[in-house]
Amino acid sequence: MSATSDTNTFGFIGLGIMGEGMVANLLKGDRNIVVWNRSQEKCQQLKDAHGGRITVASSPREVIESVDVTFSMLSTPEASSAVFNGDSGVLAGVTDGKSIVDCATLTVADMQGMAQQVTANGGDFLEAPVSGSKGPAAAGQLIFLCGGSEPLFERVKGELELMGKASFLLGGVGKGTEMKLVANMIMGTMLASLAEGMSLSESLGLKSEDLIEILGLGAMANPMFKLKGPLMESGSYAPNFPLKHAQKDMRFALGLGEATAQPLPLAAAANAEYLRALPKFGDDDFCAVIEALKSRPN
Amino acid sequence: MSATSDTNTFGFIGLGIMGEGMVANLLKGDRNIVVWNRSQEKCQQLKDAHGGRITVASSPREVIESVDVTFSMLSTPEASSAVFNGDSGVLAGVTDGKSIVDCATLTVADMQGMAQQVTANGGDFLEAPVSGSKGPAAAGQLIFLCGGSEPLFERVKGELELMGKASFLLGGVGKGTEMKLVANMIMGTMLASLAEGMSLSESLGLKSEDLIEILGLGAMANPMFKLKGPLMESGSYAPNFPLKHAQKDMRFALGLGEATAQPLPLAAAANAEYLRALPKFGDDDFCAVIEALKSRPN
Amino acid sequence: MSATSDTNTFGFIGLGIMGEGMVANLLKGDRNIVVWNRSQEKCQQLKDAHGGRITVASSPREVIESVDVTFSMLSTPEASSAVFNGDSGVLAGVTDGKSIVDCATLTVADMQGMAQQVTANGGDFLEAPVSGSKGPAAAGQLIFLCGGSEPLFERVKGELELMGKASFLLGGVGKGTEMKLVANMIMGTMLASLAEGMSLSESLGLKSEDLIEILGLGAMANPMFKLKGPLMESGSYAPNFPLKHAQKDMRFALGLGEATAQPLPLAAAANAEYLRALPKFGDDDFCAVIEALKSRPN
Amino acid sequence: MSATSDTNTFGFIGLGIMGEGMVANLLKGDRNIVVWNRSQEKCQQLKDAHGGRITVASSPREVIESVDVTFSMLSTPEASSAVFNGDSGVLAGVTDGKSIVDCATLTVADMQGMAQQVTANGGDFLEAPVSGSKGPAAAGQLIFLCGGSEPLFERVKGELELMGKASFLLGGVGKGTEMKLVANMIMGTMLASLAEGMSLSESLGLKSEDLIEILGLGAMANPMFKLKGPLMESGSYAPNFPLKHAQKDMRFALGLGEATAQPLPLAAAANAEYLRALPKFGDDDFCAVIEALKSRPN
Repeated sequence: MSATSDTNTFGFIGLGIMGEGMVANLLKGDRNIVVWNRSQEKCQQLKDAHGGRITVASSPREVIESVDVTFSMLSTPEASSAVFNGDSGVLAGVTDGKSIVDCATLTVADMQGMAQQVTANGGDFLEAPVSGSKGPAAAGQLIFLCGGSEPLFERVKGELELMGKASFLLGGVGKGTEMKLVANMIMGTMLASLAEGMSLSESLGLKSEDLIEILGLGAMANPMFKLKGPLMESGSYAPNFPLKHAQKDMRFALGLGEATAQPLPLAAAANAEYLRALPKFGDDDFCAVIEALKSRPN
Repeated sequence: MSATSDTNTFGFIGLGIMGEGMVANLLKGDRNIVVWNRSQEKCQQLKDAHGGRITVASSPREVIESVDVTFSMLSTPEASSAVFNGDSGVLAGVTDGKSIVDCATLTVADMQGMAQQVTANGGDFLEAPVSGSKGPAAAGQLIFLCGGSEPLFERVKGELELMGKASFLLGGVGKGTEMKLVANMIMGTMLASLAEGMSLSESLGLKSEDLIEILGLGAMANPMFKLKGPLMESGSYAPNFPLKHAQKDMRFALGLGEATAQPLPLAAAANAEYLRALPKFGDDDFCAVIEALKSRPN
Repeated sequence: MSATSDTNTFGFIGLGIMGEGMVANLLKGDRNIVVWNRSQEKCQQLKDAHGGRITVASSPREVIESVDVTFSMLSTPEASSAVFNGDSGVLAGVTDGKSIVDCATLTVADMQGMAQQVTANGGDFLEAPVSGSKGPAAAGQLIFLCGGSEPLFERVKGELELMGKASFLLGGVGKGTEMKLVANMIMGTMLASLAEGMSLSESLGLKSEDLIEILGLGAMANPMFKLKGPLMESGSYAPNFPLKHAQKDMRFALGLGEATAQPLPLAAAANAEYLRALPKFGDDDFCAVIEALKSRPN
Repeated sequence: MSATSDTNTFGFIGLGIMGEGMVANLLKGDRNIVVWNRSQEKCQQLKDAHGGRITVASSPREVIESVDVTFSMLSTPEASSAVFNGDSGVLAGVTDGKSIVDCATLTVADMQGMAQQVTANGGDFLEAPVSGSKGPAAAGQLIFLCGGSEPLFERVKGELELMGKASFLLGGVGKGTEMKLVANMIMGTMLASLAEGMSLSESLGLKSEDLIEILGLGAMANPMFKLKGPLMESGSYAPNFPLKHAQKDMRFALGLGEATAQPLPLAAAANAEYLRALPKFGDDDFCAVIEALKSRPN
């Protein structure tokens, strides 16, 4: 496979819950994709559906070598590390002029380490963690919280617009991740607070559905409460944003508090409840945190 | 002054931040009002503006004696108690067929005590604490969280519709207050969580205005964050909902947790920050809680 | 029964876990006792054992009427209220020169209410809540935390010395209770912290008995950890100080924080765990709080 | 310098607050020492005082090469790393038969990393973090919480007895550190709880010295409260155990909670207060946490 200098072709690594929707939106925008995924089956399905516009690479390295700009969207630090390093990894393919846009949510240190390695090899790096989960990814409604190379940010603006409804360049590499973590910390606390309120309303003999309706009418009305409230009420925890990932983000955000000596007493209290729920509900949706707030010793 | 049997005339006690707007909306709906307020000046202004449709009573008791149904909206337990008791108080005027709709936020026990006294005298009682502050009161967009007499709830439905956009009958007297406190507990925790996130973002060198914009684009978007976020950022704490009242509601909600043995770890952590801010910022808006989260020992 | 002016005879109301040991120590000190208890059987046992030195009264009022100085030791606010009020209650017997030493732990407001009523009737009042539970009560090793009348404090000094190892006059009525609550708040937090540490050590595969031994060798070594640690390890929760009383004291202490706008974030976090344990372990020893810290959603 | 096979001579790296006292006790026990410290001045003072029993090495590596068994006591992860790595570091000197006893408090991962490198080079490794600070180090009253090689633990038992009053072998490398962190987590929470109680007692107008005396008489009596209470009361924060180290240990302990999904709500609440105090009081004694609990927004 030879390198394309085709500016309409982009690399994409990672076809999970998020990546799937993102690629679909790039395709709708007439971009061609060189794709790699740990399970090759997903790549093949994409190839079958879109024919010549999809090229399936045999390794992350091959993706980088084939295109100028590659997006990656991997769900865990372990997955990112596995894809990034090694002979057939991303880094092995980075040379002058190669650009990486990493959409994962990692620690700031991990993200900065990746950026350093890429730029040391002559490449350009943009962190671009997203706000939004499966639904917004599919609908092209993500929000990109970017840090790093401004020229690269400008270069991929059109692609970010295909996949999202807004994008921010917040500073150097790390600033995007930090903003993502601050936002997710508030999200985790808000949802745990709703869970706490629903637990209390049930203890009082009030109906949670009334509470949810009332919250939906006032100044606190928000799509998350509207979506998750009824799911919590009925105990429906099919994962949209897995609890283990929400807990990980709380942990990373608490780490930012440590690094800046900023007390985060509410997030710390919320985190204790996510931890309580983690062993049993880690793979369920993070709204299962309500089970921790209602839990009692046996 | 003789009793009116005029079904289009209602009593209204308390012309504070909330009462003012509520009366204005009753007047827009062509109701006549017999009014009493601790400071008579406000009554006179109303009389000057609306002439014969306003009758100024000389005591709370006189209001009750003049009409069948009286609304009261008082901001503290002390004010409620002062207006309710004594020779010229509300209770002294209650006889068979008199109805009281109390829109204050009190403890459940206080509310139930009032209801008992009213019904012991032959009257009918509806608690109707509201969700919404100055703006919604003025705009007729309150939410009434009622408990108590169902016939009275039905009878004042039209008036509640003039003053609010929704009303709920949630059970016996106390259930409205309980729902109000659960909702305000979530509100207090949510706002303290935003304050915590803004404090962290500032510690990190991120811009709070970016955080607020980002939150406004996603699943957490809500009118309160949109309104209070910029005010917190600029340190503008003109009271819309005073911090001392928000803290009082947190305390009452924590009391409901005690009564039902429901742990409320997030609300308890938030309450500690409201308490920290209370001595200096009690009369400011409750978004001044951000000052506690940013505070350091001297 | 006629009033004794015998300065060696004292009234004692309440022969529960605490009162039993306290009376035994007064008897060892050659005091005579006029006694009343809700269950008369306990009074009779005392009479059988000590003959003429014990007089069994038929009501709390009769105790007061028979002696100059009466101690009372009741375990709940409800019990205190029941014994204090009514025709045959304590207050009905109080006249000029009668003195009441109340050793219960109540709220400050309740204690002050009692004091007011006693002094209004011409009596003298000393609050004297104790630090120490069953063992210290039996061993005469209680600590009396007094507030109120200094002359009465001086008058009963000898009796307090029989029942305890130290006594403090801390200010007016209420100050003794406040000090008791501050001390018990720290106690409740310390024990919950040990429980938290033991839960963590077990999660890590460390032996709790090693942890307890190590804590016992260093600067944190204290009798409570030494006593309760092994009981928590073996899940032995026979009540020495019932969890429901420990939780009540945490609640009252948090109330003092509310009253003085002092944030108490640690006590609030500990209280959430006591509440979590309350429904199932309320009647067990307060060291059962470890069950809450180890609990998980089902 | 040639290797000694003298079993009475030991290496010692790090002559800080702790190491100084530990070496003094080894010398009292007639051991000879090959010593290295970042600031050579301290080594020279030791040499001047003890003559031939002290050998001053020019690098950590030289210490290892000169003896069979080396103790190290370094106060931060950075110092440990600096001394361990590099051409003249500890690891460069480790060959078959060399033994390292590391008394620092690091993360479990760091400790295990060190152990792995030492054993990979043919050496033997014992982690031996201590409970106790300056005073116990000087008095030979430390407690050694060991993990790792049992033969090495047995071999240095005599030396541990010279420096401490007890030593435990708790499992593989990491288990000593874990136990240390659990104990220090409880210590940090206990002291913050005392600080919280003293803040409340002051708010109530009670005397902190009375509170401290009362706590000293009961089941909670412990040397730490007796020592630190009066220092907190008088605002005397000369560092015995610096707040920044106490906060670091809280952070590491919270990390153990994350790793085992054990909620630690009390430690998390205490940690928020240590963080609040950190910027201003990091170098002061950890009892300065009381400043955070008394702090208010300006």
